[in-house]
Amino acid sequence: MTAPIDFYFDFSSPYGYLASRKIEELAAKHGREVNWRPVLLGAIFKTTGGAPLTQIPLKGDYSKRDFARSARFHGVTEFSMPSVFPIASQAPARILLWAKAQDPALVSGIAHAFYRAYFVDDRDISNPDTAADDPAIKDSLKREVEAAVAAGVFGSPFVVVDGEPFWGIDRFAQVDRWLATGGF
Amino acid sequence: MTAPIDFYFDFSSPYGYLASRKIEELAAKHGREVNWRPVLLGAIFKTTGGAPLTQIPLKGDYSKRDFARSARFHGVTEFSMPSVFPIASQAPARILLWAKAQDPALVSGIAHAFYRAYFVDDRDISNPDTAADDPAIKDSLKREVEAAVAAGVFGSPFVVVDGEPFWGIDRFAQVDRWLATGGF
Repeated sequence: MTAPIDFYFDFSSPYGYLASRKIEELAAKHGREVNWRPVLLGAIFKTTGGAPLTQIPLKGDYSKRDFARSARFHGVTEFSMPSVFPIASQAPARILLWAKAQDPALVSGIAHAFYRAYFVDDRDISNPDTAADDPAIKDSLKREVEAAVAAGVFGSPFVVVDGEPFWGIDRFAQVDRWLATGGF
Repeated sequence: MTAPIDFYFDFSSPYGYLASRKIEELAAKHGREVNWRPVLLGAIFKTTGGAPLTQIPLKGDYSKRDFARSARFHGVTEFSMPSVFPIASQAPARILLWAKAQDPALVSGIAHAFYRAYFVDDRDISNPDTAADDPAIKDSLKREVEAAVAAGVFGSPFVVVDGEPFWGIDRFAQVDRWLATGGF
């Protein structure tokens, strides 16, 4: 039995959304499961000094163009930039962790539903009615983000295969080869 | 007659080096020429607030691993991280522009020679004996960097095909499709 692929993502990340539409097929191709691990880029950026892509001079304009072009390139026909961007993603991340604690089989469906609401239906998912205010869940997300930083995660999407880290949907071809060959 | 591909790069950039080993084959596949355009990331980072990848927390360790893995992935067997990194790349960039002004046919060979010296033979190319101190060439590089920023260039490698910008060797598959289809 091989280990699952760790799939780190932020619900406010366009590349994370695109990757969420590809990761299960990629994992299944190699007989792997996906471990969905929501993180908070805002918290991670405090370590790395990063900033939201769209707010960086030059990179901002480029990234908006690249989001849409990459969606077309990867065959993700359902994508539009949300009218409010970026958003705080604590609430959906906490809900996902809460659901994971109840039944891991729920996680994939919920992750897709949140991403679809934000990047397809342009619905603000930062403050859902069903907000997860449970202190244990809040603490769980905090620990998850700290564990992600400790594992070297600094972006979204970020995939770890048997300890090997891959940043970005543009490394999925390398993930594919790594899974096929056990390392190259 | 189609326009050449604009290939922007910094001589101190590992991904720029890897891209330099692939760009001519990619362009030739679609009947295009390559316009070699050296830039200075240090100057560009003043606009974007960027920093050398290897000096950013978390990203630094990842990038060193990714340089080597990406070299293997792209079949560039000749690659090693230089013992002095990064370096100031004004001198090789100026020499390239000087050569370009003499005879454009010289540029590709000189670019490969500098990159090979740095990323294969571990020779510091920041201060070659044949330094280009000609004020006209200095000014030429300054104007090139300003033109690059004005064109939205913020990284290395950076490719512009018929006005469409692509950042990174990880976008070469998109460049390939763009050249094949005239846009997608």
